[in-house]
Amino acid sequence: MVDVAADPSHPRYTSLLMRHRLEEAAAKGMLAGSAMIAHGRGEAFDYLLGERTVPAAALATRQALALLLAAERPVLSVNGNVAALAADEMLRLGAALNCPLEVNIFYRTPERMAAILGHLEARKAALGLSVDVLGHAPDATIPGLKGPRANCHRDGILNSDAILVPLEDGDRCEALVAMGKHVLVIDLNPLSRSALQATVTMVDELSRVLNNMLAMLNGGDPPSVDPAYDHQAVLDEVVQTVVNGFSAQ
Amino acid sequence: MVDVAADPSHPRYTSLLMRHRLEEAAAKGMLAGSAMIAHGRGEAFDYLLGERTVPAAALATRQALALLLAAERPVLSVNGNVAALAADEMLRLGAALNCPLEVNIFYRTPERMAAILGHLEARKAALGLSVDVLGHAPDATIPGLKGPRANCHRDGILNSDAILVPLEDGDRCEALVAMGKHVLVIDLNPLSRSALQATVTMVDELSRVLNNMLAMLNGGDPPSVDPAYDHQAVLDEVVQTVVNGFSAQ
Repeated sequence: MVDVAADPSHPRYTSLLMRHRLEEAAAKGMLAGSAMIAHGRGEAFDYLLGERTVPAAALATRQALALLLAAERPVLSVNGNVAALAADEMLRLGAALNCPLEVNIFYRTPERMAAILGHLEARKAALGLSVDVLGHAPDATIPGLKGPRANCHRDGILNSDAILVPLEDGDRCEALVAMGKHVLVIDLNPLSRSALQATVTMVDELSRVLNNMLAMLNGGDPPSVDPAYDHQAVLDEVVQTVVNGFSAQ
Repeated sequence: MVDVAADPSHPRYTSLLMRHRLEEAAAKGMLAGSAMIAHGRGEAFDYLLGERTVPAAALATRQALALLLAAERPVLSVNGNVAALAADEMLRLGAALNCPLEVNIFYRTPERMAAILGHLEARKAALGLSVDVLGHAPDATIPGLKGPRANCHRDGILNSDAILVPLEDGDRCEALVAMGKHVLVIDLNPLSRSALQATVTMVDELSRVLNNMLAMLNGGDPPSVDPAYDHQAVLDEVVQTVVNGFSAQ
């Protein structure tokens, strides 16, 4: 369908590459029926951001990484779209932070869990990384959620003190916040329930955020927690950036 | 996946119904791989509009319908997403205007054409409507386009003087405008190339536009062409509406 190998200099190369990864993941059974639509919504918001890391998003990313570094039990949550779009970057971040990834999906079925876990294990082996990937044997539930979507690992999400949740559903974000964790959301919609509720919200495209974090870690520039960080002010700044870009058209 | 029959009073009922229709269409082979992502982009823009027909969109819809009524050879273009989301409304509009529908898709394959034409013919029979559905036997090409996507009917798109093109690709919109036609675009992104280039752009959700047009026709309120209609001013007003809604959050 999309010939992504053709030309990395194409202005839509990254966008086409991400679509290609989603199509491959769909063929492997990793995605829910709503995954492509959710990705499209993100594309629209990224378009309004200018498909770049805006200054407020860079600030949020520094604070989120600082909170992960300062945490005693950090964990990185992975759903189907995240595994499809940025498995390598999530595994590299988990290895660099020495913390587990946990597969945690909204439409949880044994088949989808197996497909996502299989993909992550294959990429981990290909990259030669040492990092725990949880999700295969949940032994706890997230309070306030009903059904299979509440399932989690005691040594992973349940007892974590800081959790990175890219592309998260609003209900689950709320439940994680209610548990008293530092909830670090990546979401291109600055007005989503997840974006509004989180401890820190990075309004930016997933792989850009992860590569920015990896660059800080690999560049010997680990950020410190800013005690004066103002979640709402940072979100307001992103909204203003979008509005300015939109009005200028 | 989505239980749409459950509760029409659910705030997300329409949105879930549209997703359900796309899933059914995908299973029938009517959609390209990018269809769901395109729908998601539309959802994001509709969310910013407040999921309603804003005043500037109502104005554009009146003008577009007036141009279709005043045309000598109007035609309604239908692609996979349009057939999936609003086959009934498109067929009813074609019957009311006594003009043909023409299936005209970007990723044109015999299988997709057959699936879309089959769906339209089935809906036409179910509704008991008399309306021509073209696309099965293209005998002309749209100047300026390459490959199968240029194919069209001489008695349909090629010789039309006004064409309704919902959810149209920018290249094809440009080619149709270059032919001197009145090009009437339905597109939720007011900044898309199609939206900018059209004669009239309705920044509104497809089924809302079509139902608004049918209500004007059935209510005995056929609009007249406004010679002072200002395409750019109407688009600017929509952008301002979005910006105001966004800033107010």
